[in-house]
Amino acid sequence: MNNLMVELGTKRSIIRELFEYSKKMKQLYGEDKVYDFSIGNPSVATPSEIDGQIIDLVKNDNQVHGYTSSVGNVDVRDAIAKDLNSRYHTSYTKDNLYMTCGASSAIAIALKAVVSKDSDVVLAIAPYFPEYKVYAMGAGAIFRVVSADMDNFGLNINELEKCVNENTIVVIINSPNNPSGNVYSKEEIEEVASFLLKKEKEYGHDIYILCDEPYREIVYDGINLAHIPSIYHNTILCYSYSKSLSLPGERIGYILVGQNCNKASEVLAACLGAGRMMGYVCASSLFQKVIAKNASALSDLKVYDENRKLLYEGLTKIGYKCIYPKGAFYLFVKALEDDAYKFMERAKNYNLVLVPSDNFGVKGYMRLAYCVSSQTIINSIPAFEKLYKEYN
Amino acid sequence: MNNLMVELGTKRSIIRELFEYSKKMKQLYGEDKVYDFSIGNPSVATPSEIDGQIIDLVKNDNQVHGYTSSVGNVDVRDAIAKDLNSRYHTSYTKDNLYMTCGASSAIAIALKAVVSKDSDVVLAIAPYFPEYKVYAMGAGAIFRVVSADMDNFGLNINELEKCVNENTIVVIINSPNNPSGNVYSKEEIEEVASFLLKKEKEYGHDIYILCDEPYREIVYDGINLAHIPSIYHNTILCYSYSKSLSLPGERIGYILVGQNCNKASEVLAACLGAGRMMGYVCASSLFQKVIAKNASALSDLKVYDENRKLLYEGLTKIGYKCIYPKGAFYLFVKALEDDAYKFMERAKNYNLVLVPSDNFGVKGYMRLAYCVSSQTIINSIPAFEKLYKEYN
Repeated sequence: MNNLMVELGTKRSIIRELFEYSKKMKQLYGEDKVYDFSIGNPSVATPSEIDGQIIDLVKNDNQVHGYTSSVGNVDVRDAIAKDLNSRYHTSYTKDNLYMTCGASSAIAIALKAVVSKDSDVVLAIAPYFPEYKVYAMGAGAIFRVVSADMDNFGLNINELEKCVNENTIVVIINSPNNPSGNVYSKEEIEEVASFLLKKEKEYGHDIYILCDEPYREIVYDGINLAHIPSIYHNTILCYSYSKSLSLPGERIGYILVGQNCNKASEVLAACLGAGRMMGYVCASSLFQKVIAKNASALSDLKVYDENRKLLYEGLTKIGYKCIYPKGAFYLFVKALEDDAYKFMERAKNYNLVLVPSDNFGVKGYMRLAYCVSSQTIINSIPAFEKLYKEYN
Repeated sequence: MNNLMVELGTKRSIIRELFEYSKKMKQLYGEDKVYDFSIGNPSVATPSEIDGQIIDLVKNDNQVHGYTSSVGNVDVRDAIAKDLNSRYHTSYTKDNLYMTCGASSAIAIALKAVVSKDSDVVLAIAPYFPEYKVYAMGAGAIFRVVSADMDNFGLNINELEKCVNENTIVVIINSPNNPSGNVYSKEEIEEVASFLLKKEKEYGHDIYILCDEPYREIVYDGINLAHIPSIYHNTILCYSYSKSLSLPGERIGYILVGQNCNKASEVLAACLGAGRMMGYVCASSLFQKVIAKNASALSDLKVYDENRKLLYEGLTKIGYKCIYPKGAFYLFVKALEDDAYKFMERAKNYNLVLVPSDNFGVKGYMRLAYCVSSQTIINSIPAFEKLYKEYN
């Protein structure tokens, strides 16, 4: 037996651990008595046209559940390329796309595709989604963290420059960011791009930006999100419909490798090979067909903006210190004691389920996923108030 | 970039290659003019109660597309355990089960879970499904093949005994067998089990049978399929609903680790850890919910029996030599020349798409997937006749 796998399977990610805990608590105390801010499970409904399409396909398409090509059906890749081109003035085609089982599989696959040596390093910029580390391990790479810019949770380019060396193969960029809710500016991305370009020349090998974009459509206050493949050539973009269409349990997303990427078709082929080796046969046929007809559809995401304001205002009014989110649906809140785990435990006494920031590469913060119902937020405020009073 | 991944992504499996070829040919010549026996894409419809459930869930369950636990929802695991117990007089519970994205992911995950050293060997018995090799590579193991019993394509225990040594960690058993259509008898399995038990004691470590059972429900002439976990303690069973419910594109199946397995809960935890590392978040939420309500449902599989007879009789009448299938939906036919690839190419001239046996670890045979419409088989017979005449 492989002990590392036993450990990974036993010590679950803290997010999953809290998700399970909250399920049990809800059974004990009732759904509306537990304020679960642990997991990014969208509360906003899947758009009705999506559910309508599912019903239509199941009734009328006799190939709806059949195998598809490993890379994905032609029509869904065509539809996605067309949608992206209309938004980003790009010229993607189906040949730039590989349909995957969500962004997690996309990231695990993409890392496996580009990592080739034990000495290869994958960099993530804190705060970062903790599973990146597990996927980098799976790819056989060394995982290193660029420490966080504790003032603004920005891209921390100064620290990134110190961390990149000749072993660096991948820099993961996640914007809108989970857990900070920050959105990196075009200028920040451009600065990183020109730095990496310089380093590629210096070291004589490709350095990839792996851009993890499940929150691409959840951006507030009219901010324009930079399209990284248009800024940096060697970009591998990982996308998921989990958040934009509220389909997290159906595992549907894609890998995009743009024409600007060096040896783009080989990189995409390497992704296909990695996916094959990891037992991915195809992304769900039903959901590929659904997305083919709804490549531009979106859930009613404005609820998240309302939640953002409700939670941010509710907590700051009490006295909590929070980062004001520009995107995604996470509020990053300073814990009321240094040890975020201890704070998590005390919050549990008020049925507040919050994720400590330690696994995200930052100490002393809590991640609150506010993709819950607005009512949950309203109901939770008195609990946060009691918790605050305990400390003050 | 990882060259092995590029290679795996570029040189696709011959089955996938032929599947793509046949799609193109059908566009050129028309659906009914190409006799595609390449891929195990069931022609039999998904049971109407399954499609009815999908529609019902999409309409009425507001959690239908949400994240599930990584291991799978409680109710689907409960339902599967209950169904298995009623059939095999076992006492499985939800804690013996991990819901996966079909059998391919289950195999890739299970191998990763138990392989821990570069020197670990995974054995497959020819003829075998070629992707086993790719999954064994992914797990970091050495892949070795037990040569085929060319008379009956049985379990070839004599050869197996020669191949097992102290590095052997897994023996993959696939019955009903893809590609031979053979079903191994209870006696054969018992003989392998007692041999492996002896070797476990001799070497002082566990040896697992990985039992790949996507064709479990497709068994002919009233044959009773041996339930391997009841015969051999260290069995990891990988199952898929691709064939029994005609859902291959939806990627839903499971890993079963029975109570008899040494450290059963650790083995299942290792599977969960391996799945996590490979980017599997959960099996489709919709299809978990569907199976929870239909754990005993089956497609109308008797069509495969009709096809078996049609194709076997049609080809043997012409003069082809075929193994009479006891299960699955493959006919293993002797090629009319030594080089099966050359035979494949000549068959293409008659729009016959057949898979050469070389990648299955046997030379000189063709695999014909007869999960096509009966009409396709009837229409293909004159083409097979012309091909035969070319050789005689």
